[in-house]
Amino acid sequence: MLFPTSLAEAAEAIRLGRRRPTELLDSCLARIRRHDGAIRAWVLVDEEAARREAERMDVEAAAGRFRGPLHGIPLGIKDIIDVAGLPTEAGSPLRKGHRAACDAVAVAALRKAGAILVGKTVTVEFACFDPSPTRNPWDPALRRSPGGSSSGSAAALAMEMCLGALGTQTGGSLVRPASYCGIAACKPTYGRVDRTGVVPVSYQFDHVGPMARKVGDLAILLAVLPAAEDFGPPRPAALPPGADPPVRPRLGLVADFFLSGADRAVRTVVERAVNQLAGEADVVQVKPTADFEAIQEVHTIVMAVEAAAYHRGQFAAHRQSYGPLIAELLAAGLAVSGVELADNLARLRDFRRRLPRMLEGCDALVMPATDTTAPETMATTGPKRFQAPWSCAGLPVVSLPCGLAEDGMPVALQLVGRHHDDERLLRIAAWCEERLAFAARPALLGEPPGSGAGGGR
Amino acid sequence: MLFPTSLAEAAEAIRLGRRRPTELLDSCLARIRRHDGAIRAWVLVDEEAARREAERMDVEAAAGRFRGPLHGIPLGIKDIIDVAGLPTEAGSPLRKGHRAACDAVAVAALRKAGAILVGKTVTVEFACFDPSPTRNPWDPALRRSPGGSSSGSAAALAMEMCLGALGTQTGGSLVRPASYCGIAACKPTYGRVDRTGVVPVSYQFDHVGPMARKVGDLAILLAVLPAAEDFGPPRPAALPPGADPPVRPRLGLVADFFLSGADRAVRTVVERAVNQLAGEADVVQVKPTADFEAIQEVHTIVMAVEAAAYHRGQFAAHRQSYGPLIAELLAAGLAVSGVELADNLARLRDFRRRLPRMLEGCDALVMPATDTTAPETMATTGPKRFQAPWSCAGLPVVSLPCGLAEDGMPVALQLVGRHHDDERLLRIAAWCEERLAFAARPALLGEPPGSGAGGGR
Repeated sequence: MLFPTSLAEAAEAIRLGRRRPTELLDSCLARIRRHDGAIRAWVLVDEEAARREAERMDVEAAAGRFRGPLHGIPLGIKDIIDVAGLPTEAGSPLRKGHRAACDAVAVAALRKAGAILVGKTVTVEFACFDPSPTRNPWDPALRRSPGGSSSGSAAALAMEMCLGALGTQTGGSLVRPASYCGIAACKPTYGRVDRTGVVPVSYQFDHVGPMARKVGDLAILLAVLPAAEDFGPPRPAALPPGADPPVRPRLGLVADFFLSGADRAVRTVVERAVNQLAGEADVVQVKPTADFEAIQEVHTIVMAVEAAAYHRGQFAAHRQSYGPLIAELLAAGLAVSGVELADNLARLRDFRRRLPRMLEGCDALVMPATDTTAPETMATTGPKRFQAPWSCAGLPVVSLPCGLAEDGMPVALQLVGRHHDDERLLRIAAWCEERLAFAARPALLGEPPGSGAGGGR
Repeated sequence: MLFPTSLAEAAEAIRLGRRRPTELLDSCLARIRRHDGAIRAWVLVDEEAARREAERMDVEAAAGRFRGPLHGIPLGIKDIIDVAGLPTEAGSPLRKGHRAACDAVAVAALRKAGAILVGKTVTVEFACFDPSPTRNPWDPALRRSPGGSSSGSAAALAMEMCLGALGTQTGGSLVRPASYCGIAACKPTYGRVDRTGVVPVSYQFDHVGPMARKVGDLAILLAVLPAAEDFGPPRPAALPPGADPPVRPRLGLVADFFLSGADRAVRTVVERAVNQLAGEADVVQVKPTADFEAIQEVHTIVMAVEAAAYHRGQFAAHRQSYGPLIAELLAAGLAVSGVELADNLARLRDFRRRLPRMLEGCDALVMPATDTTAPETMATTGPKRFQAPWSCAGLPVVSLPCGLAEDGMPVALQLVGRHHDDERLLRIAAWCEERLAFAARPALLGEPPGSGAGGGR
């Protein structure tokens, strides 16, 4: 039986009785057993608990009882997010032996909707910068970065080891690994997904979001995830994925900073994808309404101070247990004065105020998600330049693969929508996805039986 | 002709042709001429421009044309708020010679609604702590503080030198002077009134709000004032003042910290007032859901850093031109580290999250606005303890006089409502005001002809 191409397809197969939750889980576990020694996407696979849960769900499904839209769907949870009874090690030796007493709010919601929590996926140390051991599955030599910090979630999805995952983004930690690994991710509107039970990096920028192979899957996951208690406006009614797509979306291409800042290989693929969409969508050029260069420093300073505020006791006592990049970040944060932080928060507010104007003449902005394909090194998870401005702005982002570059690595589009308009953005992204028809898979997975020559562009 | 007891009464008289704008203005100017040498509520009275404008409005009114709900109403504007063509000296020698190019957003809205801008009222230096020369008109010896920092606006209203005013509050700068001077004030929901064109103290806490003699007047003024551009939820429909009062409001009396922290004189008056309201309202006891003691330090630290961020260039160059109290504040702010500010901002967010729960079982909280009556000194504008928590919370507040203490000085109730529910809070406050029937005036004003023995309680 073929592995489902999407979470949506798997959920439907379970609902129609065509596939049992245990069958689906077993396919995932087989993939993990076969490939995770090389890929290292998982910190912990809770095989026994997952299997027990899947067996219960088999019985329920056979009796026509379904817990929710995720009944029997195997998911991976980034290891800075609490899953009751499992450790949350956050990629740090300092958290060895930790065990979460209860589920993070987001995890509890997924569980309640029927998800099977396969285990914890690798995160970069405290979701910052020091690379994790996870490999990018698209590189046959396994020498390329999967991106970070949601490295394990992205690689696991690319390797079809699960059908959805939770990640987090402070700079570019959802969109960048998704882009490097050829899968889809959504960084929702700031506050749209509750962060309770997630190890914090930075109050101003931390976002929890879904990752999956298809955009429609992101919509299914996001619909289940509850908003933060103090999330401003009422949450818009969740629409079934794929429903009510814009007939002819107006896409705002951002050439300045983004297209112009990407390397030739990425630019070629993105331009080809946008030209393809332009056959049916209106594509307009959009100019930045705020300074994307200047905001990089603001992002780094505010993130450094907020991370240092969280870590400072432990950092003072156990500095040697921190990786070099996070240690540098925390040391920089400790050196920032209060007035300097206040100034940077003011610059951040100004950026946030200016940015939504970019969306005045279009339904969504479109630009490359990263400046290059996955770096040919394991020494960095790549730059946050292209993603961090949207973490600053708090606007919703969907990243989706749009083709393969000449080096065989995936390239992604980053779509940006209006505040609180996540569901509509997801519909626009699904519309784009359908037209781009990206169907390539890592060579490591082998050809699916009877699939011909793959579908990469 | 008697001076109107309220802005509402004056506006109606103008609309009905019973009083001309010039007559009203002349009454105000006469008061100012007679008393402001002693009271010092005004920095600048723009007599000529005000008279010219009033004459035009006479003609318009006679022709049945009214610019808006404030047609011909003389107002005072706190001197940290820009009025086009006038200086904004902010109580500091460093701003001598400044001249505002255009109106603050709030001032432009008042002007458009027909207000006559009489002049600029005295503010404490940069709206912080160093006392201004303004006297409290209720003290015959003129040795008491009017409170601060909106000292001039409060004293001018108590002396019937205008019919409404704009003030600002960062700690307690609207509610405290209003309370000490026996007038009414509204600190709106954070963000409810645009701050563009106002010299900032602290982004997190600065509020612009209306001051007047009667609560209904505050509602008329607030209905005209525009919200900040990024003010979250849509502004609720403005209701005509006095309309739809709650039939029987449920008031939550906060004994802990507030009633228990007030001196005997204030407590006696407040308890009498609450007992009087309890005849018709439901009064329930409400316990604090957050730490009102601990938030004082958070308020001071965040305010100090944000003020220091604004002033630091000028403070470094001209430290000797700053008063001792603001100099101490700015020096303290410069010494705070980034992580300390981040910690205090986190404590502030936690306080903001917890506080609204106090309103779960009632329509409004009620408590004394200040811990004592106006201090018998000009060396301080009084403590911000009772008002600063609500500046932190961002919840709307209305302060209204409820009686005279044994020292002959006014005492006020402070009512607190739900976020974005300013209009309803004002209706509740008007309901209370009607029952409390506070009608005392400073002895300095003399008895109004035929008024009998005054109405102070």
